Amino acid sequence: MENETYSNGILPYIPFFYVIWSDDLLSTSEIQVVQTAIDEDHSLSQVEKNELLGWLDRDRPPSDATLKNWQQLITKSNVTLIESETFPLEAFARKMASHYCTSCAPNEHLKSIELNLGIQPNHYNHLFNVEVIQQKFSNSYTGKHLDGHFNNKHFDQLQAFREFLEQPIFKWEIERDKEQARETVLQQLTALAKAGWGALAYPKAYGGRDSIESYASVFEQLLFTDGSLAVKFGVQFGLFGGSIQNLGTKRHHDLYLEATGKAELLGCFAMTETGHGSNVRGIKTTATYVHESKTLVIHTPGKNDNKEYIGNALHSKMASVFAQLIVDGKNMGVHAVLVPLRNAQHEVLKGITIEDNGYKLGLNGVDNGKIWFNQVSVPVENLLDKYGQINADGSYTSSIKNANKRFFTMLGTLVGGRICVAKGALAGAKMALYVSVKHALQRRQFNDSIKIQEDLLMDYPSHQLRLIPRVASSFVYHTALQKAMGDYADSDADKRRIETQVAGLKAIITWFSTATIQECREACGGKGYLLENRIADLKNDTDIFTTFEGDNTVLLQLAAKGVLSNFKSELNAGGFLSVLKLLRTRMTDKLATINPAYSNKLDKAHLYNPKFHLHALDYRLRRLTDTAAMRIRGYIKKGVPSYQAFLKVQTHLLELGKAYSEALAVKWYYDFVAQQKEGSYKDLMYQLGALHALSIIRKDASWYLEQGYLSGTKSKAIRQRVERLSTELRPHINSLVEGFGIPGHLVHAPIAG
Amino acid sequence: MENETYSNGILPYIPFFYVIWSDDLLSTSEIQVVQTAIDEDHSLSQVEKNELLGWLDRDRPPSDATLKNWQQLITKSNVTLIESETFPLEAFARKMASHYCTSCAPNEHLKSIELNLGIQPNHYNHLFNVEVIQQKFSNSYTGKHLDGHFNNKHFDQLQAFREFLEQPIFKWEIERDKEQARETVLQQLTALAKAGWGALAYPKAYGGRDSIESYASVFEQLLFTDGSLAVKFGVQFGLFGGSIQNLGTKRHHDLYLEATGKAELLGCFAMTETGHGSNVRGIKTTATYVHESKTLVIHTPGKNDNKEYIGNALHSKMASVFAQLIVDGKNMGVHAVLVPLRNAQHEVLKGITIEDNGYKLGLNGVDNGKIWFNQVSVPVENLLDKYGQINADGSYTSSIKNANKRFFTMLGTLVGGRICVAKGALAGAKMALYVSVKHALQRRQFNDSIKIQEDLLMDYPSHQLRLIPRVASSFVYHTALQKAMGDYADSDADKRRIETQVAGLKAIITWFSTATIQECREACGGKGYLLENRIADLKNDTDIFTTFEGDNTVLLQLAAKGVLSNFKSELNAGGFLSVLKLLRTRMTDKLATINPAYSNKLDKAHLYNPKFHLHALDYRLRRLTDTAAMRIRGYIKKGVPSYQAFLKVQTHLLELGKAYSEALAVKWYYDFVAQQKEGSYKDLMYQLGALHALSIIRKDASWYLEQGYLSGTKSKAIRQRVERLSTELRPHINSLVEGFGIPGHLVHAPIAG
Repeated sequence: MENETYSNGILPYIPFFYVIWSDDLLSTSEIQVVQTAIDEDHSLSQVEKNELLGWLDRDRPPSDATLKNWQQLITKSNVTLIESETFPLEAFARKMASHYCTSCAPNEHLKSIELNLGIQPNHYNHLFNVEVIQQKFSNSYTGKHLDGHFNNKHFDQLQAFREFLEQPIFKWEIERDKEQARETVLQQLTALAKAGWGALAYPKAYGGRDSIESYASVFEQLLFTDGSLAVKFGVQFGLFGGSIQNLGTKRHHDLYLEATGKAELLGCFAMTETGHGSNVRGIKTTATYVHESKTLVIHTPGKNDNKEYIGNALHSKMASVFAQLIVDGKNMGVHAVLVPLRNAQHEVLKGITIEDNGYKLGLNGVDNGKIWFNQVSVPVENLLDKYGQINADGSYTSSIKNANKRFFTMLGTLVGGRICVAKGALAGAKMALYVSVKHALQRRQFNDSIKIQEDLLMDYPSHQLRLIPRVASSFVYHTALQKAMGDYADSDADKRRIETQVAGLKAIITWFSTATIQECREACGGKGYLLENRIADLKNDTDIFTTFEGDNTVLLQLAAKGVLSNFKSELNAGGFLSVLKLLRTRMTDKLATINPAYSNKLDKAHLYNPKFHLHALDYRLRRLTDTAAMRIRGYIKKGVPSYQAFLKVQTHLLELGKAYSEALAVKWYYDFVAQQKEGSYKDLMYQLGALHALSIIRKDASWYLEQGYLSGTKSKAIRQRVERLSTELRPHINSLVEGFGIPGHLVHAPIAG
Repeated sequence: MENETYSNGILPYIPFFYVIWSDDLLSTSEIQVVQTAIDEDHSLSQVEKNELLGWLDRDRPPSDATLKNWQQLITKSNVTLIESETFPLEAFARKMASHYCTSCAPNEHLKSIELNLGIQPNHYNHLFNVEVIQQKFSNSYTGKHLDGHFNNKHFDQLQAFREFLEQPIFKWEIERDKEQARETVLQQLTALAKAGWGALAYPKAYGGRDSIESYASVFEQLLFTDGSLAVKFGVQFGLFGGSIQNLGTKRHHDLYLEATGKAELLGCFAMTETGHGSNVRGIKTTATYVHESKTLVIHTPGKNDNKEYIGNALHSKMASVFAQLIVDGKNMGVHAVLVPLRNAQHEVLKGITIEDNGYKLGLNGVDNGKIWFNQVSVPVENLLDKYGQINADGSYTSSIKNANKRFFTMLGTLVGGRICVAKGALAGAKMALYVSVKHALQRRQFNDSIKIQEDLLMDYPSHQLRLIPRVASSFVYHTALQKAMGDYADSDADKRRIETQVAGLKAIITWFSTATIQECREACGGKGYLLENRIADLKNDTDIFTTFEGDNTVLLQLAAKGVLSNFKSELNAGGFLSVLKLLRTRMTDKLATINPAYSNKLDKAHLYNPKFHLHALDYRLRRLTDTAAMRIRGYIKKGVPSYQAFLKVQTHLLELGKAYSEALAVKWYYDFVAQQKEGSYKDLMYQLGALHALSIIRKDASWYLEQGYLSGTKSKAIRQRVERLSTELRPHINSLVEGFGIPGHLVHAPIAG
């Protein structure tokens, strides 16, 4: 076939223009890229330039007939598209041009177009009816480097721990029987303790390394090993040991901390009660001080006042029991007391009843139980008395006079556990994404012809949209949790603010993980339903993470109250006093009216700009804060009791809590990326951030539209950008999931290859 | 205290005005109700009327000071609010007025306000600082009547079946071991078969009752019993038996149907293959006809071409095997052949290999397995030859000449199974909602004071919003599936259209169920995580329903193709020919521009009107149809290959498939309600419909806003109405979940009380 239509200078531009116009995503800034390249292309005559520039007019795009003609020109050239070329489209275009014109010289300007438009073979390889030599994975990024970038603290220790997990004892296996599963987990726990991993967060004097950050990283890896092991580890070293470390004094540390770290003393954390759930301040167990015998009498008053769902309850020798401390007939509020549960022969002590909670949806390797106390006496020294002491004369003193404040200070020391829960949930999501992406890179389904290979699952737009934004979000949330843990470990930080931040992050990240694992299960079809492929267990094990260490619905309301009181409220406080006080005085935040030019701004440079994302998320946060404050004030002015006023805006508070947390995660992520060295990984990180942020904004698009923050056209453009970014990241998806840093020896799913 | 401010005529109106203005939900039509009552109240003087009417001006609402004054007047009257009164607010207002004025006469007009505004004690009982005597359940509706209304076909048989399930053998118990679980399920299956329940859909001549509708109702009840039992039942009687009934001829019926119904012959349905998943047309198993021996040779060519996930594989004596039928070297397309698997001693026959699929996320009472065939010969008579026959001379004939059409006709006979899957998933959602609502009606959490009772979970707005719309949706989807099954059973119906409808409904309803059960798990907190409370098992058992009998993502694309081709396309067809043909000729549907007065219409009467709901859902469907058609046409005009053009709009097609199915379900629901007798249940049904429809519209609010179909204000009003309707239905929630008709003897969850 002859090309009679186009000059030699124009010919190599044809595949570019075809790719550009066959889709509808060309924005003003993209047109600019092409225009500049043409302007600078001195090999073109002015006539040729004019012809090419004429095809760039968005108001008068090339006709369908022209496009069809281009398509045939391309197809009939019979050139093969080789995706592994450095500039595959430029190389293709060059070879195509050579087919019609033997004397054509390579055109360097086309490379700059290809580079600047960010177009990749998977955007156009299906548009040409030509042979395609596919490149399965991109070589631009490696998972190893990504892992290093995102785990830049204590990386060596993390690597050492990953290697430690290669021992056969940690190999994941299907185990249906809870007794057997608990036995395995106990052995694994002991092995970890013996090697010193359990004590990481404890002071060096007690065999630890004084690093709660390392502890949290280790916890995350354990989720890759087995959900039950991670939770058991958290209960023994984080909750039980943590209560001794944070609520006890040197006496308790000397007696118990080292043995706890070595798992020679197994303990449980007995806070929650059947009848009171999330309302810890309302627990009914009492610890009554008897001055004559210098003892505390622990007692469960009613049948439903038992401790419930206590992990490690069947293996423990001791419990850290939360109870109302009664001194001289007066309730001093909730305190923790160490109560021995069993003797050396593992017989339950007198006055104590322990029952197995039975089978659960997941985590059946964890021995959850119920505990009742019937007038059980322990020495007064067992009171974990850092924040409240009983003196030799039988009087009670505390450095924190306000009982409410004391209570929340004690609970505040446990915030680290909440970060770990979120990290654990996120690890579950990462593992599920790893398995389903690896599967989608091998599994083929359907095509237009039975003669050629079926398409890879990963190349279906719907499959990309269901998995790739979630991979991006995983990196953003990972970074947010790393930052939260760093802040929490920093003794100078504003604890009240961190509690609020962690409450919100825990809620949105555990919900994200539950939804992600579900999506992964479905994305793997029936294969995802088989236990051997791990997703099923990850799903069941992490499902409860939305409930424990603070029910998400409760936590989001706490976060909202924190925001409303400018982080001055006692976290968990029911009285709303500090919120109300602030509401009364606080000026309404003046939000600038959104300029129509802004709410209509559509170009790529703007939509991918972190400034836009942060502005949008911050706008939502501030607006929801103001409207919530106004509504509450309005009710109170009308005489509605304050508790009821808060209840009336409960669903609003949940949205506010979410908005706060999402804005925070994105802000922290971009702060982190800004600190990275320039180079290709930084670009990739910004792409991941943009995909996550636009997905989040997209989820609340109806709200933004209602507010006039987004125009209808901009909202549509965001939806298209989410799809487009997903396809742009498609070539890197293998490196991205490898960047989660999941050790190969912990991946057992047959479908992950 | 004296009331010095208000006249005796005005006094009883005060609580009404307080309730009205303390919230922000008063719409124009509601103001009208109050205005009419005042106009007609001849006990009021003109001065009093003017004062009251002055308080109805939305532009000049009563001041905060006035409202606070009203609140105090109410509180200081010390009157108790008794929720069980017929007109509780009127009674309260009357008593309050009497407190300040001994001679006040009852005012009948207040009753009409209370009735017409639809205000209920739970809207205002928290606004007054008075003693409240709560009414736990409303007496307006009973679950029994609801059940009867919604299961109006074959109700006696349904009741008989529910009673049958009271036998101890059907009692649900925790069973972790798959061998034991399979044994139990097999025994239950046999008991059902012996009593004739398995054969319901078969002709009377073979022990059945010729009623696929009864069969489907029975299937739903089995899900309440146990997920594995339901699926095993479906495989044995619906899939295996169904293939004999629908694809076989009298010879096969005579030989096998009665034994199948009695479970004397156990069989499996061997369609899906490991390597080909949803792509049934691409299966690789062959059935090659050998004329010399008049046999068919069944063969699995490659390692991954085995039958996969075949239910009943380990218990079966025979399989209905789907294979490419090769006659005289020519592939006649996919046909089903009966292949014996085991002898009387249950030994696997020569050439056949069967492997257990192992443990799954759920349904471990079902024996799923993989099957390979190595040159297995069966008599040609075993070909299920209703749609294609091999004649005595060895030639092949079929009444359906087109191989594609033949294939889809065969698959079409299995659409009943898809309806059952959706019914089963929905039954899981109903059971989970039942358990979590019953729990929320007993469980108390938090309050503003430790002195008074904590609030019921069910009284939290966030809890109402998470459960009540889902209860409403369950009734709507139930009705849609009843209608689909009725149409399917009707031999005169347009089969192609029904297939499209069922494909879409199966997808949206199974997704709804998965999300609902998840919400219920979380709404029950840690209690929901215990196996004993059933939600965990329902979650795991029904999870795969989004994948099997057609992956939801695939089904929605089929539905979309059905819509685009005006239900003329071969369902499942990959060639797109009929769609393309229609796209070429079809006129663009002229959608009227939305009048701003309409997109801004906010009053209650409009927002609750089925006409608005149907209009909105239909608008979305038509708009998505047009834009999808335009986009595909656009790509094709530019020379993009047709398969790729469809792929490029894949996410659009998924939205279209959903929009079609949601619109259909709401339409069928309102058609059903319109046929009901006038009376209170009809009103309730409309309320349920409005809550469901507004929730669905709300979910896609961003799209409606982008299109300008909804104004920002209207979109907000819809969000508020969803919350408001949830509180309006709160008093009836106990009756509503009892209306699901779950037999008491099948409810074992301790938290359901």
